[in-house]
Amino acid sequence: MAEHNVTVENTLQVLLSEKKYTTIRDILITMNPADIAAVFTGVAKEQQPLLFRLLPKELAAESFVEMESEDQETLIRGISDSELKQVMDELYVDDAVDIVEEMPANVVQRILAQSDPQMRKEINEILQYPENSAGSVMTTEYVSLNPNMTVGDAILRIRRTGVDKETIYTCYVLKNRLLVGTVSVKALLLAQSDMQTIESVMDTGGNLITVTTHTDQEEVARMMRKYNLLAIPVVDGDNRMVGIVTFDDAMDVMEDETTEDMEIMAGMTPSDKTYLRSSPWDLFRHRIPWLALLMVSATFTGLIITSFEEALAAQVALTAFIPMLMDTGGNSGSQSSVTVIRALSLNELEFRDLPKVIWKEIRTAVLCGIALAVLCFGKIMLVDRLMLGNGEVTVMVAAVVCLTMAVTILCAKIVGCSLPMIAKKLGFDPAVMASPFITTIVDALSLLVYFGIAKALLSL
Amino acid sequence: MAEHNVTVENTLQVLLSEKKYTTIRDILITMNPADIAAVFTGVAKEQQPLLFRLLPKELAAESFVEMESEDQETLIRGISDSELKQVMDELYVDDAVDIVEEMPANVVQRILAQSDPQMRKEINEILQYPENSAGSVMTTEYVSLNPNMTVGDAILRIRRTGVDKETIYTCYVLKNRLLVGTVSVKALLLAQSDMQTIESVMDTGGNLITVTTHTDQEEVARMMRKYNLLAIPVVDGDNRMVGIVTFDDAMDVMEDETTEDMEIMAGMTPSDKTYLRSSPWDLFRHRIPWLALLMVSATFTGLIITSFEEALAAQVALTAFIPMLMDTGGNSGSQSSVTVIRALSLNELEFRDLPKVIWKEIRTAVLCGIALAVLCFGKIMLVDRLMLGNGEVTVMVAAVVCLTMAVTILCAKIVGCSLPMIAKKLGFDPAVMASPFITTIVDALSLLVYFGIAKALLSL
Repeated sequence: MAEHNVTVENTLQVLLSEKKYTTIRDILITMNPADIAAVFTGVAKEQQPLLFRLLPKELAAESFVEMESEDQETLIRGISDSELKQVMDELYVDDAVDIVEEMPANVVQRILAQSDPQMRKEINEILQYPENSAGSVMTTEYVSLNPNMTVGDAILRIRRTGVDKETIYTCYVLKNRLLVGTVSVKALLLAQSDMQTIESVMDTGGNLITVTTHTDQEEVARMMRKYNLLAIPVVDGDNRMVGIVTFDDAMDVMEDETTEDMEIMAGMTPSDKTYLRSSPWDLFRHRIPWLALLMVSATFTGLIITSFEEALAAQVALTAFIPMLMDTGGNSGSQSSVTVIRALSLNELEFRDLPKVIWKEIRTAVLCGIALAVLCFGKIMLVDRLMLGNGEVTVMVAAVVCLTMAVTILCAKIVGCSLPMIAKKLGFDPAVMASPFITTIVDALSLLVYFGIAKALLSL
Repeated sequence: MAEHNVTVENTLQVLLSEKKYTTIRDILITMNPADIAAVFTGVAKEQQPLLFRLLPKELAAESFVEMESEDQETLIRGISDSELKQVMDELYVDDAVDIVEEMPANVVQRILAQSDPQMRKEINEILQYPENSAGSVMTTEYVSLNPNMTVGDAILRIRRTGVDKETIYTCYVLKNRLLVGTVSVKALLLAQSDMQTIESVMDTGGNLITVTTHTDQEEVARMMRKYNLLAIPVVDGDNRMVGIVTFDDAMDVMEDETTEDMEIMAGMTPSDKTYLRSSPWDLFRHRIPWLALLMVSATFTGLIITSFEEALAAQVALTAFIPMLMDTGGNSGSQSSVTVIRALSLNELEFRDLPKVIWKEIRTAVLCGIALAVLCFGKIMLVDRLMLGNGEVTVMVAAVVCLTMAVTILCAKIVGCSLPMIAKKLGFDPAVMASPFITTIVDALSLLVYFGIAKALLSL
């Protein structure tokens, strides 16, 4: 598909420069909104409004939703108030909110001025929910039914009102604005008789899964995935229905949260911009805090080495193994921390599992430690001593290195698995306790172990 | 929700020990299949078949699908052939395939023996598609329509056949088994007249998004997210319709692929088992290959240090800064590589962007390098020299360290951003080029830079 679109994009750019607008329109109307949006990214800013005007009203709005916010801003600034109003009339509330959240204040003013009063009211309400909450990602356009309706009535109601709803496939049964059940269009179509009441076909009890306006969006996506839901109803503190989150938004949340986790795990503060849209200054701001913090924390490793300076001078061969020991420790710790961070984010682990986790990691560390120590001993004897003929690398030095390696792996895996769980318990994001952070701690630990063992065995 | 389930689980376990089966059944039938499946995980193996028999037929099958494969195996071994047949009759083909893939051979034999011939044929067909392909995750239960049908005919057909279909909301329009269009139930219900033909309401052209049986499942999920699809049709090489992948499977694929990426990025081979289900031996097997490989590669860093032994002996203060320089380099490189790996996996970057990416990283590296070098110089002068009174740390030593830091960051960011893109171009998984791998390369680079600069500036 990607290859195919690239060609269409090039064709359109040629046609645009040749001003063949009818042909362009004929091509665009065969295309999917997401693909049309991608075309806009490749078109010069001043030509975007021109291209946009070639689209039929509905397709224009659908494509607008799929565009990157930079392109949306260019378009809003380039089209007239009445054109903007046409777009706003076609948008769902949650999409309108997404756009408003990304735009500078003066553009937001124009958007709100061109929205109808009901839409404006709903946008403003949704904007008041905390960032990343269910309330902030929901839409208010759902089909509501009455428990006393018949199935036939319900289908008629969907046919009459469904065109403006983000999904019609799950309908929400309300009694005095309280959510009492859900019913799928499948259940309505497959009902034995059109005269059955909604009450008799709706899902209730354990099958009525809801979130509240303040539920974190990550939890919303997790529940939709767990229960295979097309849409999940959002209720307020009194169980009054206020909106729905649909599966397409849940998929976007999942991808965004994954990106955020990976950024945090690599020692960066999360960013909303795509990589190609980020300036070096943006990247710098997101990367420098952790780099600076971790660099300063490395003062400890420096201190440890300084305080063992004499021992190192007496046994010069020891220095050469420092990077290997630190790296192996860091890698072992990262493995455990990343495994635990992922399990926490998938809700597979809870804090009460900590003893079980530590015990599992200890046994794993013993296996890894023995295997690597043996391999390392062989490598040192064969490569460093025999092949490279480094006489300073005695059997005792090799023993010190290998023993340090086994102990370091044990420490690293215990630190790596427990810190993320403790962080979560204390209310921090466990993803912070990934590779960079763990490495810094394990570096200090491995040096302490190294010099401790060296002093004891080599009597330095 | 989680808290709520824990309580229900405990209650059920008490009731089970008191043999209050009617009460247990009354509780279970109010619950959601996913929650019932979670209850099974907490129940002793010998009691699982007993509990399973309390469930009504349909709910039993739905809960079975949601269980972990260990529990599914226990149940299959514990129930009779006729009970197993009842479960198999209720399953969708894709769920049956998922179960078959996880079971040992003798259990698979029993499952196939209890499936009806059509189901058995379809399971066997799907099992032949490559692992992680669209063919291997699709289901064959979709609604097919004829282009000449009227909307009214189509709704009737859905009502008659829909009960066995995994989704009825998108229907597939076939002509001689070729896929010619899709039509949503929304479009059918909202059509102006029941007498319109399917051909006149169906989506075709750019709105007909398909994948082939061999498309990678990650690409399938990505396309469903891009185009907001509830289900995507899977066609063979001749555009003949063979199945569909639904959004709930796409969500599972997204989570599984994220877990796999994170595992690879932390230097582990990916695992299918959840953390708590993995034995220390499982964890060991997935962790040792990279640990061993990276440990052996660290021979190079050792060699570099050995060859500069004399320089280090002359300027003992230099050794203390090795960990800080290596860590800062490693962290800088990881930041770039993880950012690029993520952008690649979201299809935001292509290989032809490489020069643009390198240029962006160079400018970011200059910003980070200058900032950290200045900070580092201040830290060394203030902490190491003034506060700790380490006389060996001269202004020249500080200058060597800070210059090395700036150059190392530059190298690390260039290596970090380009290796994942090159790996992808060569057909490898870019996630391999994350923290552990980058760290090992950057360690060697930073030491070479360090000793090079030290030799030049300190005339060692």
